[in-house]
Amino acid sequence: MSSAISPLSVPFPDMPPIAGVTFATAEAGIKYKNRLDVFLALFAEGTTVAGVFTTSKCPSAPVDWCRQSLKGGSARALLVNSGNANAFTGKKGVATTTAQGQLAAEAAGCRPDEVFLASTGVIGEPLDASKFAAVLPDAARRAADGPWIDAARAIMTTDTFPKGATRSVKIGDATVTINGIAKGAGMIAPDMATMLSFVATDAAIAAPVLQALLSAGVVGSFNAVTVDSDTSTSDTLLLFATGKAPGAELVTDVADPRLAGFKAALDEVLLDLAIQVARDGEGARKLIEVRVINAASDQSAKRVAFSIANSPLVKTAAAGEDANWGRVVMAVGKAGEPADRDLLSISFGETRVAFEGERDPDYSEDVASAYMKNKEIVITADLGLGDGRATVWTCDLTKEYVAINGDYRS
Amino acid sequence: MSSAISPLSVPFPDMPPIAGVTFATAEAGIKYKNRLDVFLALFAEGTTVAGVFTTSKCPSAPVDWCRQSLKGGSARALLVNSGNANAFTGKKGVATTTAQGQLAAEAAGCRPDEVFLASTGVIGEPLDASKFAAVLPDAARRAADGPWIDAARAIMTTDTFPKGATRSVKIGDATVTINGIAKGAGMIAPDMATMLSFVATDAAIAAPVLQALLSAGVVGSFNAVTVDSDTSTSDTLLLFATGKAPGAELVTDVADPRLAGFKAALDEVLLDLAIQVARDGEGARKLIEVRVINAASDQSAKRVAFSIANSPLVKTAAAGEDANWGRVVMAVGKAGEPADRDLLSISFGETRVAFEGERDPDYSEDVASAYMKNKEIVITADLGLGDGRATVWTCDLTKEYVAINGDYRS
Repeated sequence: MSSAISPLSVPFPDMPPIAGVTFATAEAGIKYKNRLDVFLALFAEGTTVAGVFTTSKCPSAPVDWCRQSLKGGSARALLVNSGNANAFTGKKGVATTTAQGQLAAEAAGCRPDEVFLASTGVIGEPLDASKFAAVLPDAARRAADGPWIDAARAIMTTDTFPKGATRSVKIGDATVTINGIAKGAGMIAPDMATMLSFVATDAAIAAPVLQALLSAGVVGSFNAVTVDSDTSTSDTLLLFATGKAPGAELVTDVADPRLAGFKAALDEVLLDLAIQVARDGEGARKLIEVRVINAASDQSAKRVAFSIANSPLVKTAAAGEDANWGRVVMAVGKAGEPADRDLLSISFGETRVAFEGERDPDYSEDVASAYMKNKEIVITADLGLGDGRATVWTCDLTKEYVAINGDYRS
Repeated sequence: MSSAISPLSVPFPDMPPIAGVTFATAEAGIKYKNRLDVFLALFAEGTTVAGVFTTSKCPSAPVDWCRQSLKGGSARALLVNSGNANAFTGKKGVATTTAQGQLAAEAAGCRPDEVFLASTGVIGEPLDASKFAAVLPDAARRAADGPWIDAARAIMTTDTFPKGATRSVKIGDATVTINGIAKGAGMIAPDMATMLSFVATDAAIAAPVLQALLSAGVVGSFNAVTVDSDTSTSDTLLLFATGKAPGAELVTDVADPRLAGFKAALDEVLLDLAIQVARDGEGARKLIEVRVINAASDQSAKRVAFSIANSPLVKTAAAGEDANWGRVVMAVGKAGEPADRDLLSISFGETRVAFEGERDPDYSEDVASAYMKNKEIVITADLGLGDGRATVWTCDLTKEYVAINGDYRS
């Protein structure tokens, strides 16, 4: 499954160490020999944690495990593997997460309920927990505070480039750093697109506050990105706060004004990572930003935006560099949200192609067509109804997507 | 846009004349020269009519027109054109439908509100009504009671085969016939997939009863078929009842027991046509029937079935002849409907691949893989919760779909 790097890739940023976070990778031979397939991160005592997971009604066993561990609000270890998702594995899957939690806790010197787990890979195959016993003690001994690009690479599956984002910001007098890594809609085997992202900071933030910040942050970032409308059983986003930044004072109130800069920086890290996931969508050659403005409400705007972003006809038109605004009209119309044909305007980039329910009289197909040759395309739908707005990101739908996902499992 | 005939095509049936229905086709040069692009049908006095239309919030002008005409419940003419959808054409579009209604009424010798219109083709281009003036009087003179395959061909756009269905049945002592034709997810220009279907019978049925029968009939047929989840601005299904079958007596009550056979026959015609539309989905090489059983309710079952049928990952797996049940689990999980991972069973054909939340211990990948080579595939998801059930039909997602929809508009 080696493939060329996405034409939409971005360079990996310089990411400083995070005080209180160390990590290592290992080869456990979960599905293939001689492949990095385990990532272990260790967190200092006192680290708080927040998480957001797939909305799937059929989540994987590791997702169930994390939801349980999250109740304690405390994290000391994160164990991630590729090659096997431990999803739809019934009671065996639960036994595996229990064993993984025990093994990681022994390696990290913590309680099992301070361990967090994520798995990505094939579904329905039992995951052999003994593979972890062979590698975790050594991985814990080797754990170091960088380089973060190794962490980003270790969680890649068929992602074509490592994804990272970092910001530094003040909370009171302390300078804190936020580092995040993500893997996107790559496939293993191939089996299923799973999004995993792990973010760590040396800020000192109580777990309920951390959860509130993360839950708010995903709305405009990870929950505003779609590759193909499909939802994995295993999507996992975790945020760890070690509190080890020099001078860090514990923040216990989400309304604490000292958090303003941190909140903005966290939102930026999450959005940066989410857009990188869209940039590495399977077969993607174009990044599409869909802006819906003047909708009946923000929620309505987001539904319309996703209707456009998930439309196969819109996505194939983008792949064909076709300024096909008729398909955008179609996607607005099918969203089921308030819309008035005769108030609707649509633009590709700065070119307004439709205005008040008709083709814009000043529309130049040449200008619009030239714009569609860009690697990054902005589609704006102005519903002309209210002041609701939303922006979502997706990629085009290419023959490569079908090839990647239609190849027979080997 | 000539393309090979779909490998899933079925032969056109022998369709008898319908007493009270005549039709003709014409070349009006709407978008291209020397191409049949107009279809005119004439109905006997006293013909009743029912209709079901796109749920799009941005419907085409002809859809608005039909909704208005439908209030009268009486039909004398149907005018269909390809080449231009008269959608998103603002006030010009309304002027065009008004002119079309007048011209067709003159040709048919009826009132404009007894005329029904349907247009398919490019969006956002004004449709010149004068093109119809040149051809309708002659078409009306030439109108004949067959052959119906000509009618089915006349409404094709990039459909690869003509679609028809017919049934004969008794209402009381009278033998009545139901003929239906449809065009499917073909493209003009290419621009947008539009589904048009016209059904006629010589039964005598009052308009409100006809509407009740049609509204009920679409639930398990046209509203149970998806090609790519996209919804046209122009989807139109019309049912005409001339009452001219020898001995036909007017039925005025939907609960009339004499209607039982007719209702079943109508449902069969609608289902037959709807499945033919899925068989001719763009780039389709496999017909996929998705059955969801033992869901919390029928409605819930249908939502889960559409989640599976619209999943790009499920559809590409089918294209790749991959018995990838993990993707079916994913699609069940993302539907947002009640589902319990540990009660879920999934089958491909007769082969149960997953049982009670795990891979079926008796599952043979060889058997499942061999089954996926069939042109017609049945996927069954047993949710194990209640007695709700639904069946929907779709086709696979192939590179040809992307090619057809990603080619630049010429």
